[in-house]
Amino acid sequence: MAFAIEINQDVENIPYSDRKKIKAVADKRGDLVDLMSGNPDMEMPAFIKKKLKEKIDSVPMRYTDYYGLPELRRRLSDRIRTDSGILIDPQEELLITHGVQEALYSVMRTILRRGDEVLIPTPHYANYLLNTLACGAKPVFIPLEEKNGFIPRIKVLKEHLTPRTRMLIFSNPNNPLGIVWPDSTVEELARFSRTNNLIVLVDEIYREFAQPEPPISIASIPGMKERTFIFRGFSKTYFMMGLRVGYVIGPASVMHHVRQLHYILLLCPSTLGQFGALAALDCPEEEIKPLHWEFRKKLQFLFKGIMEIKGVTCVPPNGTFYLFPNFSHFGMSSLDLSLKLIEEAGVATLPGTEFGSAGEGYLRLSVCAKMGQIEEGVRRLQKFAEKYS
Amino acid sequence: MAFAIEINQDVENIPYSDRKKIKAVADKRGDLVDLMSGNPDMEMPAFIKKKLKEKIDSVPMRYTDYYGLPELRRRLSDRIRTDSGILIDPQEELLITHGVQEALYSVMRTILRRGDEVLIPTPHYANYLLNTLACGAKPVFIPLEEKNGFIPRIKVLKEHLTPRTRMLIFSNPNNPLGIVWPDSTVEELARFSRTNNLIVLVDEIYREFAQPEPPISIASIPGMKERTFIFRGFSKTYFMMGLRVGYVIGPASVMHHVRQLHYILLLCPSTLGQFGALAALDCPEEEIKPLHWEFRKKLQFLFKGIMEIKGVTCVPPNGTFYLFPNFSHFGMSSLDLSLKLIEEAGVATLPGTEFGSAGEGYLRLSVCAKMGQIEEGVRRLQKFAEKYS
Repeated sequence: MAFAIEINQDVENIPYSDRKKIKAVADKRGDLVDLMSGNPDMEMPAFIKKKLKEKIDSVPMRYTDYYGLPELRRRLSDRIRTDSGILIDPQEELLITHGVQEALYSVMRTILRRGDEVLIPTPHYANYLLNTLACGAKPVFIPLEEKNGFIPRIKVLKEHLTPRTRMLIFSNPNNPLGIVWPDSTVEELARFSRTNNLIVLVDEIYREFAQPEPPISIASIPGMKERTFIFRGFSKTYFMMGLRVGYVIGPASVMHHVRQLHYILLLCPSTLGQFGALAALDCPEEEIKPLHWEFRKKLQFLFKGIMEIKGVTCVPPNGTFYLFPNFSHFGMSSLDLSLKLIEEAGVATLPGTEFGSAGEGYLRLSVCAKMGQIEEGVRRLQKFAEKYS
Repeated sequence: MAFAIEINQDVENIPYSDRKKIKAVADKRGDLVDLMSGNPDMEMPAFIKKKLKEKIDSVPMRYTDYYGLPELRRRLSDRIRTDSGILIDPQEELLITHGVQEALYSVMRTILRRGDEVLIPTPHYANYLLNTLACGAKPVFIPLEEKNGFIPRIKVLKEHLTPRTRMLIFSNPNNPLGIVWPDSTVEELARFSRTNNLIVLVDEIYREFAQPEPPISIASIPGMKERTFIFRGFSKTYFMMGLRVGYVIGPASVMHHVRQLHYILLLCPSTLGQFGALAALDCPEEEIKPLHWEFRKKLQFLFKGIMEIKGVTCVPPNGTFYLFPNFSHFGMSSLDLSLKLIEEAGVATLPGTEFGSAGEGYLRLSVCAKMGQIEEGVRRLQKFAEKYS
């Protein structure tokens, strides 16, 4: 008999998603339009490329400070003071991470104890759930409703409170919903969190894509900094996903432990990635803004095209790379519809259920492909819809 | 009263080392010779630099496959078949990681359950202990003795077995000891692990620095592949520490879960780092071998210089960047001696106790600095010794 190795129960409980099933079907079709991926097909700005190449030529590629280059931490603490009015100590309250992904894991694993309950407004970014499960904590889903524009209602949050409720996690702008929660909602959430003694994790990775401008950061509201962790990164804003640089800001007493966990996970973040991040902070606006405008244009185009399909509804997007339209009219499960769209229409999308069961009936469409591809995707979706209506 | 956030007990239990204390003292002295760092002051080979710059210019820096570029996994599975006679499936049994650091965490966290016991021959690389504690498991130290050349004795291992013993972890070549365990010892360890149903983790990051040639990989011994995880990386061999690329090879049934934990930790390894790894695999031998020879020369020089100090003993090094000489003759604790060496002699070293209490009386010296610095370091150490003898 083969030697059998038992798995830690918490790790065994981390589910795999349907994305593999979808990719397997997608790989069989050649001429697919990709409205599925959150992985932009864009090159980095020339300014960042140039700076990276200079570093490769001029310095040994050594480990950096475990917690990130001191200069990068200093620059980022300046930036959050300027753009969000939040004053922090770059040594004690900010950590450079391997993207927001590592930051989420390190913070959640540091804080959560077995049986703690985590409030997750849903549909949600899948990792909020996966990290909760990996910690042996309990996810408590707060359903968001299209009829309310996917804005959370405090009444519903209150109904889900128990003595074990410890944390609230959300993204703003929201992936997968493609929307920004208004500042008044953020203020309500702050009051709710303070009243109920909750820790707040806010994922602001899509901050720079919010329209007309970035939302208030919940940590800037009085009484919130001491209970809030802010997650930001370079991947989306500067199209440097593969360089893997993010950061997290949080209260010093907790960050002390997050740093040590981060050290045993990574030793240090990528040195070249951090050089890229420093370059990004110096990148001229005129190299970045046009790229962001292109994404907004693609998003509005896709939204308009989708709204022309009979029976489809969608909350207008004003942030991120995504749309989250309601296709329940087609009478199929999201997964079936998504697979059918690949096979019959040649369009890859993600079923809404990749973002929790509250996403049933929805699809997540992205605009990471080039404009021509998105135009073709809209044509194919409209043609498919005609056949099935 | 400030809002207080409780910490997960396992994470709270991860200790910080004395390294910070040492760095604080070191930062006060300007003209220090660094015999402390495992972070070589060497540039990457020109071939790798060139390939990296070409990639920066020619491809978007997108996320890769979560588990690593398929081509890189294929190339590494070819390599381990050729250099160690181990046949693996690159999809199911190999994962690209953020250095060996992430690989160790992901594997240990996937396997270990609360109360499991981990056999750690000591002195040991500190993370074997930190990861064990971070999993709520119990470290069981197996003392290695200078008088036996720091070779483990099966008799001692047996004495530490209990019904909860589950894992054995070691590095070969050994950091911090600077030595390679002979193949006969590796074979004994294999027999011991099979007989007692243990999982084996072997850290082979310094493999290419072993003299005269790399040791046998324990996974290549019959009956071992199904219970062994091999950790290797690019950081040391190619002087690309800051690119953060390693890999782990292990049984498919466990790697299935390691991959999913890895995904929630990282999303994917650095894209640019992986391009660097692919370039490294194609790097001409004549660009790499001279660098390795330089390290061997520096190590032998340092060893010879240390042996001239009266009362100091040292097992001759034959792998890694390190020496682990016995300075107990000076009648100081390792930490005190290390601090005194910084302040009085201007030489930074690490106390042996950074690698467990079995390191008391020893120092770890490294050869990551340039040859001229190492010569100066030897002079300063000899002068210091004269004063104290």
